[in-house]
Amino acid sequence: MAKSDIQELIEAVVQFRDERDWKQFHNPKDCAMSLALEAAEVLEHFQWKSPEEIDEYMKTEKGEIAEELADVMYWVLLMSHDLDIDINDTFMEKLQKNAEKYPVEKAKGKHTKYTKL
Amino acid sequence: MAKSDIQELIEAVVQFRDERDWKQFHNPKDCAMSLALEAAEVLEHFQWKSPEEIDEYMKTEKGEIAEELADVMYWVLLMSHDLDIDINDTFMEKLQKNAEKYPVEKAKGKHTKYTKL
Amino acid sequence: MAKSDIQELIEAVVQFRDERDWKQFHNPKDCAMSLALEAAEVLEHFQWKSPEEIDEYMKTEKGEIAEELADVMYWVLLMSHDLDIDINDTFMEKLQKNAEKYPVEKAKGKHTKYTKL
Amino acid sequence: MAKSDIQELIEAVVQFRDERDWKQFHNPKDCAMSLALEAAEVLEHFQWKSPEEIDEYMKTEKGEIAEELADVMYWVLLMSHDLDIDINDTFMEKLQKNAEKYPVEKAKGKHTKYTKL
Repeated sequence: MAKSDIQELIEAVVQFRDERDWKQFHNPKDCAMSLALEAAEVLEHFQWKSPEEIDEYMKTEKGEIAEELADVMYWVLLMSHDLDIDINDTFMEKLQKNAEKYPVEKAKGKHTKYTKL
Repeated sequence: MAKSDIQELIEAVVQFRDERDWKQFHNPKDCAMSLALEAAEVLEHFQWKSPEEIDEYMKTEKGEIAEELADVMYWVLLMSHDLDIDINDTFMEKLQKNAEKYPVEKAKGKHTKYTKL
Repeated sequence: MAKSDIQELIEAVVQFRDERDWKQFHNPKDCAMSLALEAAEVLEHFQWKSPEEIDEYMKTEKGEIAEELADVMYWVLLMSHDLDIDINDTFMEKLQKNAEKYPVEKAKGKHTKYTKL
Repeated sequence: MAKSDIQELIEAVVQFRDERDWKQFHNPKDCAMSLALEAAEVLEHFQWKSPEEIDEYMKTEKGEIAEELADVMYWVLLMSHDLDIDINDTFMEKLQKNAEKYPVEKAKGKHTKYTKL
């Protein structure tokens, strides 16, 4: 993957939106609905499939799943922009928080919620 | 926002995951469930609120919403990595596709689905 | 509405499923995914619409929304059956619990979560 | 399970709501969000678990899952009421439609979408 910058993606998304004068529709509630609906479209691809069927499916449908993930990212970036959130900083801070909630020595190899570790 | 690179975020996420030996749990179906569940947590913040209440809410709870968006991004990036998807390229290609589905002259100022434009 | 019995609906659903020999696919995880996906389809109908647009939309698309709600109910009933849950009793008990969490004198006219009442 | 009537459940739900004067908040968009959020709570119970872990989990947590399913049903019934939808009739009609989309002789033992049968 070529080096790529989140800020550049955000600028591309905002430009795409503003050229169409769609900001007027983009209240946070409907944007959050879009985010949830696009995430559901990712989920739908994996429904009713065994791990083996998913491996098989990935061979032919990877492009479609990639696009659904990009659609989710679209809303993450647009909401971040509109709500004046620095998603990059937040992301790294949250990862740090999670590292503290799930210390390696306790969490290693377990899918236990941190409240029960 | 400081310049930041998607590839660097992905590396941070994968390192976080691998230190905890969690890859064994990260089959695509459960990851897609996580993605949908985190998107639902974003959505929950906006429920039952009027536009004015959302403005008010953003003044005090922006940090929480930022973290939920980061959680969604976590799964987008981790799934992209695990499924060998170049999310940056896909993102820009999808934006180009959408630009063709929603040409500025037809879509400007309308929230009509492209199939009905 | 004619009097109708939940148990009869469940029997109809289970018969439909068993005639097609689909129980083999109906593990609880995938059923819960279906439930979430059908709920997302309900949600999709209301996206990007103002209250006035929703009123207008209901005049022509009520049948479609009705079917999406029925699809959600399908999974509620089938999961209840498969997990040996008495959904009717649970429903009335939960309503009783909620009545205690949200006592009329405190909750009247407020959309405050019970933990903050 | 004792015989129980959907209409009676709807009446109980509407009475619960009206005693609290909550109809003012119950626009269809926010109700549909609630439906999706409650369905996500069902889904969450099954995340990261193998079939064996789910069996084990059901032994101790069945009551919680039952309540989440009841919460989903709450919104199905309340939305049906508010949108003047006869959910019982719709349910039986939809089952009939699905029976035609998935004829037993074609669909038996397959989890193929009807468009690909």
